[in-house]
Amino acid sequence: MSEKQELLAERIEHISLSSFDPSKMIEAMQSMAFQARNTAKAAKIYASMLRDHECSVWLCLSGSLVSAGLKRVIIEMLEHNMVDAIVSNGANIVDQDFFEGLGYHHYRGDPFADDEKLRELGIDRIYDTYIDEDELRVCDQTIAEIADGLPARPHSSREFIREMGRYLDVHNTRVHSIVLEAYRRDIPIFCPAFSDCSAGFGLVMHQSRASKASREMLSIDSAKDFYELTRLKIHSRDTGLFMIGGGVPKNFAQDTVVAAEMLGEEVAMHKYALQITVADERDGALSGSTLKEACSWGKVSVAREQMVYGEATIFLPLIAGYAYHRRAFAGRPAACLARHLESAGVGTS
Amino acid sequence: MSEKQELLAERIEHISLSSFDPSKMIEAMQSMAFQARNTAKAAKIYASMLRDHECSVWLCLSGSLVSAGLKRVIIEMLEHNMVDAIVSNGANIVDQDFFEGLGYHHYRGDPFADDEKLRELGIDRIYDTYIDEDELRVCDQTIAEIADGLPARPHSSREFIREMGRYLDVHNTRVHSIVLEAYRRDIPIFCPAFSDCSAGFGLVMHQSRASKASREMLSIDSAKDFYELTRLKIHSRDTGLFMIGGGVPKNFAQDTVVAAEMLGEEVAMHKYALQITVADERDGALSGSTLKEACSWGKVSVAREQMVYGEATIFLPLIAGYAYHRRAFAGRPAACLARHLESAGVGTS
Amino acid sequence: MSEKQELLAERIEHISLSSFDPSKMIEAMQSMAFQARNTAKAAKIYASMLRDHECSVWLCLSGSLVSAGLKRVIIEMLEHNMVDAIVSNGANIVDQDFFEGLGYHHYRGDPFADDEKLRELGIDRIYDTYIDEDELRVCDQTIAEIADGLPARPHSSREFIREMGRYLDVHNTRVHSIVLEAYRRDIPIFCPAFSDCSAGFGLVMHQSRASKASREMLSIDSAKDFYELTRLKIHSRDTGLFMIGGGVPKNFAQDTVVAAEMLGEEVAMHKYALQITVADERDGALSGSTLKEACSWGKVSVAREQMVYGEATIFLPLIAGYAYHRRAFAGRPAACLARHLESAGVGTS
Amino acid sequence: MSEKQELLAERIEHISLSSFDPSKMIEAMQSMAFQARNTAKAAKIYASMLRDHECSVWLCLSGSLVSAGLKRVIIEMLEHNMVDAIVSNGANIVDQDFFEGLGYHHYRGDPFADDEKLRELGIDRIYDTYIDEDELRVCDQTIAEIADGLPARPHSSREFIREMGRYLDVHNTRVHSIVLEAYRRDIPIFCPAFSDCSAGFGLVMHQSRASKASREMLSIDSAKDFYELTRLKIHSRDTGLFMIGGGVPKNFAQDTVVAAEMLGEEVAMHKYALQITVADERDGALSGSTLKEACSWGKVSVAREQMVYGEATIFLPLIAGYAYHRRAFAGRPAACLARHLESAGVGTS
Repeated sequence: MSEKQELLAERIEHISLSSFDPSKMIEAMQSMAFQARNTAKAAKIYASMLRDHECSVWLCLSGSLVSAGLKRVIIEMLEHNMVDAIVSNGANIVDQDFFEGLGYHHYRGDPFADDEKLRELGIDRIYDTYIDEDELRVCDQTIAEIADGLPARPHSSREFIREMGRYLDVHNTRVHSIVLEAYRRDIPIFCPAFSDCSAGFGLVMHQSRASKASREMLSIDSAKDFYELTRLKIHSRDTGLFMIGGGVPKNFAQDTVVAAEMLGEEVAMHKYALQITVADERDGALSGSTLKEACSWGKVSVAREQMVYGEATIFLPLIAGYAYHRRAFAGRPAACLARHLESAGVGTS
Repeated sequence: MSEKQELLAERIEHISLSSFDPSKMIEAMQSMAFQARNTAKAAKIYASMLRDHECSVWLCLSGSLVSAGLKRVIIEMLEHNMVDAIVSNGANIVDQDFFEGLGYHHYRGDPFADDEKLRELGIDRIYDTYIDEDELRVCDQTIAEIADGLPARPHSSREFIREMGRYLDVHNTRVHSIVLEAYRRDIPIFCPAFSDCSAGFGLVMHQSRASKASREMLSIDSAKDFYELTRLKIHSRDTGLFMIGGGVPKNFAQDTVVAAEMLGEEVAMHKYALQITVADERDGALSGSTLKEACSWGKVSVAREQMVYGEATIFLPLIAGYAYHRRAFAGRPAACLARHLESAGVGTS
Repeated sequence: MSEKQELLAERIEHISLSSFDPSKMIEAMQSMAFQARNTAKAAKIYASMLRDHECSVWLCLSGSLVSAGLKRVIIEMLEHNMVDAIVSNGANIVDQDFFEGLGYHHYRGDPFADDEKLRELGIDRIYDTYIDEDELRVCDQTIAEIADGLPARPHSSREFIREMGRYLDVHNTRVHSIVLEAYRRDIPIFCPAFSDCSAGFGLVMHQSRASKASREMLSIDSAKDFYELTRLKIHSRDTGLFMIGGGVPKNFAQDTVVAAEMLGEEVAMHKYALQITVADERDGALSGSTLKEACSWGKVSVAREQMVYGEATIFLPLIAGYAYHRRAFAGRPAACLARHLESAGVGTS
Repeated sequence: MSEKQELLAERIEHISLSSFDPSKMIEAMQSMAFQARNTAKAAKIYASMLRDHECSVWLCLSGSLVSAGLKRVIIEMLEHNMVDAIVSNGANIVDQDFFEGLGYHHYRGDPFADDEKLRELGIDRIYDTYIDEDELRVCDQTIAEIADGLPARPHSSREFIREMGRYLDVHNTRVHSIVLEAYRRDIPIFCPAFSDCSAGFGLVMHQSRASKASREMLSIDSAKDFYELTRLKIHSRDTGLFMIGGGVPKNFAQDTVVAAEMLGEEVAMHKYALQITVADERDGALSGSTLKEACSWGKVSVAREQMVYGEATIFLPLIAGYAYHRRAFAGRPAACLARHLESAGVGTS
């Protein structure tokens, strides 16, 4: 076995909500203090959000969640109508989920590894996780290939990701993938900074090839993403945000309230809001800004909001697991919001 | 004076590099420990980067830096050829800098304020800073107006921001603005998640109006941003990154090394890299990932890299102030990279 | 009901290890990344420590754990021979555990409360927890009363806390208390900064009264604490540290390896070491210093150490709950180290 | 040169307040946001504290400040009557300052060093700083020697540290040392957890030798420390706390308000309070608890308090440097509080 094979021996395995029931622990934590109580409050708000059938639930993803072993939790949330739309950074959706959808894996590594040596071996590191760079290049190439086959017009990231789902549905039908599951269930996925990941590499190849061949090229219109998500805000009576990490997805989803107003539509602030984060509010960056602060901007109602200061690999299974095992999703209909966007002619695919 | 006026009475004033000289403090700190030594090392790496005339210097901006009083420092860096390109989140460039370019201001506020009351008064809060929401709406409208006047084709954010600079050059010529200064000096500014800010509101209005009137609409092509920045990486012999915060700009700038390789070009890793951050590496998000980790990805050379764990309002003036007062910029030519992009036909404006 | 009564209406309830079983979640987390994997590793190291019957297990406590609802977990650890000695800050042992031992409670409060109003009402706040200051004064007085009844000589905090246990055993026999349980099981508790809590108030009253009456006074000899704990290190073949938070307890317990060497005794480094912490290593304070760093000091073996970056109200139940439900304590004998200290004549009570 | 010598080649040098003037930077920062504004506010509160000649200024020290290069700043603060009393962890006073007072040094090291190798070489690491363990052992021995020469009765740490100052005044008269300077200026230094450092090793040796020889032994009475500091609180009309880090010193100094009340004395809350910290309030530990929270306990007035979230090697020079260069100490008399304690018969040395 080569040195590289030895380093890439232990796969990241994805935890399943069905494999453990945290609901007794959550119930006990609600009468404690600090993050235990915050976690219990957040879990109960998420359950309320799901039981409120007028409310559209948006899941916002930042950080490296899929590579860390949370893919299956997110797929299970989709399967049980616990999420109606996803707003994500590019890494989770393209480099990590679509990548695994192509049949590849992430591996357990060492946070104290020698990075120069890893580079020589073609191993990329995310804290304590390894990726085979050769496989990542195949992922980039596949994106370029998908782009080459699409009409040379501006696409929202949502439209493009739907094509990625269609690709998996044809070529890799038996994998577990958020992109694939969302495609099959008409759940829209937005990556407002879509070029900022493996997708960017694929698209640069596409545009470069088109440019050299003097062909028309596909483009990714981030304004269209915002327009589409704002249409969803207008379409939904109420909305609840379940945010993991901060970054662009948090801001983007929150901003739709203001954008709807600017289009002359009366919409309510986000009725529910949760955030799991390790960030801090004190540097003024949005990632760690409190949900109370978002209220001053008219984005989030303070009635049902909860910050949980912790890291997602622990706190997402606890919070989602509570709602799952309490069957808060029971009777909740599938929203099929992708179909709404297409029938409204906002975007076509 | 109304309650709102009372709350918006104390303006944020921007610190100037010319007003204080931290270089003696920096020299003393290099023989200390912890962040003092890290800051001194970072200041010296930045000075080396500037004295290395083969090296193109890219400034990456995240968080709320302009609203916090750092606008003038960044303008002074542009004036003295201490920056060749900017990659930023949208907030700093549009909501904050272009907003001030229109003649508006940020105000000192209270981090413990009652956010529901602020909302009623139309005051938006960023930690301890206030913004008049009515003025922010004018900023959004101005973006829409600029978009309405441009050709209905995909633009990189860089092209669009150049038009914002042209707008200020015509209408608000006497203000201090990063966007205006960069326009005049042909310094490209990229916002890879351009819709994720006030620009998004303006663009949604533009697209909604065009859609209703069945007119062709302008779009913002984030893939084109990545393509253009990758062209700059290929064009420059060496590159140095001065990153403030993490987020999309950090990732986007680092990734150009890999993108260039995918276009078949031989490029060096980023030769110098500094990051000022309050984030932490332990949740696996990129914002806090170490520059050593970036080496495993083949993006950053470990020879001249330094993380500084601190908040930018203190650490940017110290680090940039050192290079400024040591005149590390002396003899450094203006790169005028925007002109390069245009003459190469990568983008036109 | 008075305003004060209204604010002190919801008691903190203590979570019990018997009420939930996290072991399936822990098993799943060991193949994930980030803190999930770290938590699983830590849980397994704790289980190994307990199964290694040559190993003495020391629990180090910092922060506000008892007031946050973790008292029962710690008592259950004592009941099942999962801890052989405790090194704690004063707050957990005196202000919080002994206080509850006297029949008082902690209450759920609001982290955004008006602190000046709380002060007027005589309510003390710990983040989101309230305490009735009048009750805390009774706790202080009880400490003074205990001190008045003891011989006027230097005592280790361990000896004094044993007297507190004896007091509860006589006067408050039916309460749940760490101090009481440890007394009954001969488990020594050390508070190396014993005056830095409610105990300090009681002792100052004792010394002031003795001084005015020209009586001999009791003193608390922190050197004796260190001497006694070092004796325990010498007595035990191997030792494992389970540290919650950092501070004085972490340092104190680690340092016994060096102290033993200075007394001319050959002892091993701590064989196992876990730390749950929200602190950070980058300011050079010991609380956040890594266990690898402790190896350079010859204190901790790197073979079986794990840092978990998280907050104790979540992570202690997960880690201790794993070892509890896997019955890692089965067959483990009670060490009764307090009896060893007394028979060795190190301290007498 | 041996490997050990090579690793211990670059000394930590102590920054001097006289070498740089941050006051212009501080003035500019007061109209900014985030930590810049907090730092400016803190600097001005410290200057006010010094100009208020009724106010006794207590400096609280946690973390590793002396080893990091801040010793000279603290000595200069003593020389200019900018501090009336010190409450510290043991490490700063014994392992670091007294250690350097004996003629030894700290060295610049690598935070990524191989700790097992350092251990073999007898090098101790504090983040990015190295210490020669052999020299540290001499420091421990010297403490034991001082203890052997003192009367076998309970001492406050303050009394013992005064003897350490006397030792340096006799044997190492020309070194720069906080302990020595404080001795000469009658400034009391308290280490409430005195055994939790190199002092502990020395005292354990003393007690062990005394025990074997059946001699009476010296003890360190932490209750006496608290009693003495409470006497100082009663003696002073007003008090201001300048806290660097949290831990025991922060709590201990704050608690004297309550202790004085318990002795039947009417005292004011601490009138001024500053804290420089990297800690966070959200785990309920005192180190990161806000000064507003301390108000609920009746310890700190909220009128003139400021938290600064940052690391001391940068922020202490900025804040102390401002007061120094603005000559806020001008006309401020020396309080000579050690003399007050001795004349009051609280402790004798």
